[in-house]
Amino acid sequence: MIVVMKPHASREAVNAVVARVKDLGLNAHLSEGEELTIIGVVGSPLPPTLDGQLEVLNEVERVVRITKKHKLTGWDFHPQKTLITVRGTVIGGDDLTIIAGPCSVETEEQTISTAHAVKAAGATILRGGAYKPRTSPYEFRGLGRRGLEILAQARAETGLAIITEVMTPADIDIVGQFTDIFQIGARNCQNYLLLEEVGKAGKPVMLKRGLSMLLEEQLLAAEYVMAQGNPDVILCERGIRTFESATRNTLDVSAVPVLQGMSHLPVFIDPSHAAGKRALVPALSLAAVAAGADGLIMEVHPSPDHALSDGAQSLTFPEFDALTPRIAAVAAAVGRRLPLTADLALA
Amino acid sequence: MIVVMKPHASREAVNAVVARVKDLGLNAHLSEGEELTIIGVVGSPLPPTLDGQLEVLNEVERVVRITKKHKLTGWDFHPQKTLITVRGTVIGGDDLTIIAGPCSVETEEQTISTAHAVKAAGATILRGGAYKPRTSPYEFRGLGRRGLEILAQARAETGLAIITEVMTPADIDIVGQFTDIFQIGARNCQNYLLLEEVGKAGKPVMLKRGLSMLLEEQLLAAEYVMAQGNPDVILCERGIRTFESATRNTLDVSAVPVLQGMSHLPVFIDPSHAAGKRALVPALSLAAVAAGADGLIMEVHPSPDHALSDGAQSLTFPEFDALTPRIAAVAAAVGRRLPLTADLALA
Amino acid sequence: MIVVMKPHASREAVNAVVARVKDLGLNAHLSEGEELTIIGVVGSPLPPTLDGQLEVLNEVERVVRITKKHKLTGWDFHPQKTLITVRGTVIGGDDLTIIAGPCSVETEEQTISTAHAVKAAGATILRGGAYKPRTSPYEFRGLGRRGLEILAQARAETGLAIITEVMTPADIDIVGQFTDIFQIGARNCQNYLLLEEVGKAGKPVMLKRGLSMLLEEQLLAAEYVMAQGNPDVILCERGIRTFESATRNTLDVSAVPVLQGMSHLPVFIDPSHAAGKRALVPALSLAAVAAGADGLIMEVHPSPDHALSDGAQSLTFPEFDALTPRIAAVAAAVGRRLPLTADLALA
Amino acid sequence: MIVVMKPHASREAVNAVVARVKDLGLNAHLSEGEELTIIGVVGSPLPPTLDGQLEVLNEVERVVRITKKHKLTGWDFHPQKTLITVRGTVIGGDDLTIIAGPCSVETEEQTISTAHAVKAAGATILRGGAYKPRTSPYEFRGLGRRGLEILAQARAETGLAIITEVMTPADIDIVGQFTDIFQIGARNCQNYLLLEEVGKAGKPVMLKRGLSMLLEEQLLAAEYVMAQGNPDVILCERGIRTFESATRNTLDVSAVPVLQGMSHLPVFIDPSHAAGKRALVPALSLAAVAAGADGLIMEVHPSPDHALSDGAQSLTFPEFDALTPRIAAVAAAVGRRLPLTADLALA
Repeated sequence: MIVVMKPHASREAVNAVVARVKDLGLNAHLSEGEELTIIGVVGSPLPPTLDGQLEVLNEVERVVRITKKHKLTGWDFHPQKTLITVRGTVIGGDDLTIIAGPCSVETEEQTISTAHAVKAAGATILRGGAYKPRTSPYEFRGLGRRGLEILAQARAETGLAIITEVMTPADIDIVGQFTDIFQIGARNCQNYLLLEEVGKAGKPVMLKRGLSMLLEEQLLAAEYVMAQGNPDVILCERGIRTFESATRNTLDVSAVPVLQGMSHLPVFIDPSHAAGKRALVPALSLAAVAAGADGLIMEVHPSPDHALSDGAQSLTFPEFDALTPRIAAVAAAVGRRLPLTADLALA
Repeated sequence: MIVVMKPHASREAVNAVVARVKDLGLNAHLSEGEELTIIGVVGSPLPPTLDGQLEVLNEVERVVRITKKHKLTGWDFHPQKTLITVRGTVIGGDDLTIIAGPCSVETEEQTISTAHAVKAAGATILRGGAYKPRTSPYEFRGLGRRGLEILAQARAETGLAIITEVMTPADIDIVGQFTDIFQIGARNCQNYLLLEEVGKAGKPVMLKRGLSMLLEEQLLAAEYVMAQGNPDVILCERGIRTFESATRNTLDVSAVPVLQGMSHLPVFIDPSHAAGKRALVPALSLAAVAAGADGLIMEVHPSPDHALSDGAQSLTFPEFDALTPRIAAVAAAVGRRLPLTADLALA
Repeated sequence: MIVVMKPHASREAVNAVVARVKDLGLNAHLSEGEELTIIGVVGSPLPPTLDGQLEVLNEVERVVRITKKHKLTGWDFHPQKTLITVRGTVIGGDDLTIIAGPCSVETEEQTISTAHAVKAAGATILRGGAYKPRTSPYEFRGLGRRGLEILAQARAETGLAIITEVMTPADIDIVGQFTDIFQIGARNCQNYLLLEEVGKAGKPVMLKRGLSMLLEEQLLAAEYVMAQGNPDVILCERGIRTFESATRNTLDVSAVPVLQGMSHLPVFIDPSHAAGKRALVPALSLAAVAAGADGLIMEVHPSPDHALSDGAQSLTFPEFDALTPRIAAVAAAVGRRLPLTADLALA
Repeated sequence: MIVVMKPHASREAVNAVVARVKDLGLNAHLSEGEELTIIGVVGSPLPPTLDGQLEVLNEVERVVRITKKHKLTGWDFHPQKTLITVRGTVIGGDDLTIIAGPCSVETEEQTISTAHAVKAAGATILRGGAYKPRTSPYEFRGLGRRGLEILAQARAETGLAIITEVMTPADIDIVGQFTDIFQIGARNCQNYLLLEEVGKAGKPVMLKRGLSMLLEEQLLAAEYVMAQGNPDVILCERGIRTFESATRNTLDVSAVPVLQGMSHLPVFIDPSHAAGKRALVPALSLAAVAAGADGLIMEVHPSPDHALSDGAQSLTFPEFDALTPRIAAVAAAVGRRLPLTADLALA
């Protein structure tokens, strides 16, 4: 950490900073120029709030933290890309992973038909919400345990792995009895006690980015999960909130290369929540894959105009069918592979 | 709700919308112009996801929801301003309420000295975090139960009411044994199960706005609390996240008149978290009061440069002392009253 | 336009709206339900400020504009995609167009070597600033006329078309003597008199999106150019300003399908200004092409660490060389073609 | 400026930075710790693009600019608050200044009646647009020269000073023949050639903040005006663009203390454009004054529901009449004075 003093700072002010640093058991490295005095602070670990403590001292111009706050999620800690294997699907490797399914589990028929459809089109993991966070308390909030049972049934019939959201620590046990991957939604991205509890649950976790979460904060949220001993975290970008209203959210496609530069964790894109409109989903899916995403999580519904949630952004079966070969083509163009059932059938 | 068809929409498309509306047990009111066909949808209650379901039908241009989604928080439901009485302090009435105290409860001495200082300067409620949400898992996260005990001791010594944050349903019981008001932090503003559980706990709740939360969404979050039978919710604006970096967050002072226009609930401002810098806190406090805020919640610390969190934005005792008479003057100018101890002493 | 009255609005209020509409020579189409009264306003053209005028009338709940404000830029006006031909390059057709070059024209040698390099790698248009908008008046602001001469010389030597920015009406004449395409920068995107003057200048115009410009506003800005009789406008997304600081701006890749859905004009992406960092440019370029962009405009410099502006986001020649084949591969995967010199040489 | 090298940076990389700095005629001050090497760069003036040039060198972690980019607008350059006197009104001093009037000059009667009304209520400067920037080319764009003549007539009848917008360099001459203060609108805030030309015109300039302009950028825009020898610049905050849609823009009231901390220039607030809704204007006006604004610029119209622009946010005469005494009361509470005609009449 570097403390930059105001131009022509007094000797007493400089000494006060140095004294404070030493009080904390750290070393201060003084560099005095004619106009500018800089104090390097060295020690390990630096208290996370140190910058705030030094910033308020007299005649301090600015405090600059040099070392990143994230550790376990960084390349220094884990120099190989993290690979997560779930029922035969390897996430984070050469193969692109497609997760698809309805926003909410509504009925057995709806879910199982969707599972068959998305599997046929190339997905290897089924998504579906049993516990739904809703902006208003008066909206449909999911089938709960019954929803989990339907997902498990869909898995049994299709062999797809399943992912579903958990919203509160008390539900981790029941959700964990069914799901293969825990999903933490955007609204809970900084629900730290949930992150820690799910970190102890022994299954992979997909962590969605909050609507106004810095990418560095997303890594720190992942750090909460990993600090509990769980290395299997998937980061998911799903659009951020900006002034633009033509889309439900603004897909920050740059999150893919930025996060991959900072972290060894797999990075997914959710084009459905970003777009909010079905017609935009194909373009955003292809963009995500071209940018290097490790996977996509998409909403597909047998009859989107009857969906109890997010119908406007869900693809129909034929739309999803038509899209996956286009995704496979872009994946191939950037050196990734999307194994399509059609190809497998031909092989 | 109004469904606007695309110009020159076909008869079949119009009929399909009408049929869908009737399927749902609602009434459709058709208005056909030469160019424009509009379908009014009437019924009570309208399913909350109805707009999404109709938007995806063929040749629909746009669906416009007329009725607001919030109910219990609205003036229609409760035509008088909500007054909340906590240990003699009436929140939401003619008196302005000041809540002050440290970001975190660190020590008995720190907390109790602050309690005396803020009481002397005009505060009637003491704030202080025992359970702290932190962006990084490696930061100071509060004293937990010991922090609650210190707050209770400060209350016993000063007569101030106390407010402290609860972060997870499992902590509601223990926090509720001590606190007078539950605080729900910005990061948990859409942690719906926490909102519901705290709604059952029988004490007032202050609900901070999330960093990218629409004001209408803040009311819907309050709706979660109120739907559990708890009428005592305080809304708090604490800055939103924007592109501007000169302040920690951007104080949306307009939230005061907007929320007061939509809701009977008291509206507070937290100038400390909005500013992020001590020097800006006075101006923002005065602005908040002039805009009509029902109260302020502010950070005060005996020695901000030794604070374990948020030191840079905490006022010192002398700064807080100097500020409250200025707040009282602005309050008087807008027809509110801040009873200052000095005045009481004189009286 | 639809005027929605407040629930149970009075007869007088409804009549007042109808009267006002008729005063303006428009027709009012009244639709009265039990709870809800809606007034459809029909007439052509509707005054652009009509919504504001009706919104303030008594007991009006909301005014909803149905017809889009943009006309000449919309598909209704021009049902074929606009193709713009510049020195043999057809913009907006099946071929992807790459514009590349330095941020600023600095020297003859720098510009001409870059022109050769980008041409060899697949670009068909050379970019370079002679008049530079700079946030601070103390920064390098371009070579002016000398810069234009250097660009023209680069064109003469390579056959590349050229694009350069014009910042003020007084410069249109001189810039127009040299350039093939006028570029309007993000800061001037709502400099309406400049837009009109450049609309009269008889050459294609690339219109960059402002940092906080709605996509609909970008179309309205294009409308200013087209209303002067100039059909050849290229829309360019170059990142918007959000809270995220890991990138210089946030690339709104959704702008591609959204604008293409609303307008017949070609849509380009500028990955360099969006990213602000060279290392992110390849991923964003590929994402843009996969999303369906009609072209890219990129910064390339012989020695970015000596560049007088935007060095951090400029690609070196080898980086650009390595990138265009990857762009070509993604283009092919989405049904576009980037003719590479290498291929041409082989053919 | 400080260059922070990556941990354990190589000797060659450090030397390369030092060499580059010396090449530019600047001094490098090396500070090597065990883990961290920092290079202080000293010299005057530092090239404005120096950070970009150093950032791209090998093994450089980060470049931190210590000195602010703005100069003439800073307290160092001008340690007294700038006072601007316009026809007897002193802007920036103890008196609060109120500018009021219609968005657009529409008719002689409308403008002159407004001038009388706002003068009677306490305003000393009349606003009114003769040249209007409009998002769409199909909207009312002002009366042009005729509008200026009407403003001058209003001034002659009332003694109020006038302020009106200039949109393009070619109009500076004609606008300057009439106006007392030039207004540069939000859309032209980075139209640098306009800023320079208006800087030469010998009259005060009000510079509105752009919708996504950093406060530091607003100072740099003012720097363009001041660098032409014009010291009389007024900064105006008028709301920034954020995700919140309950208001037209988000009033950044913190801009007042932040700008006043950085600059000696007067700071105004435009509550009308920020709110976009008449009902919110009083609260925002009072907040602005309490935050320490040097003045307000507000929209007032004899019949807002007939206004050709911005009717929804314009106050009626009675509303404005009722508001100014409340503004005067808050001004008094924060040590400012708003001389009201009523008081003057009494005196």
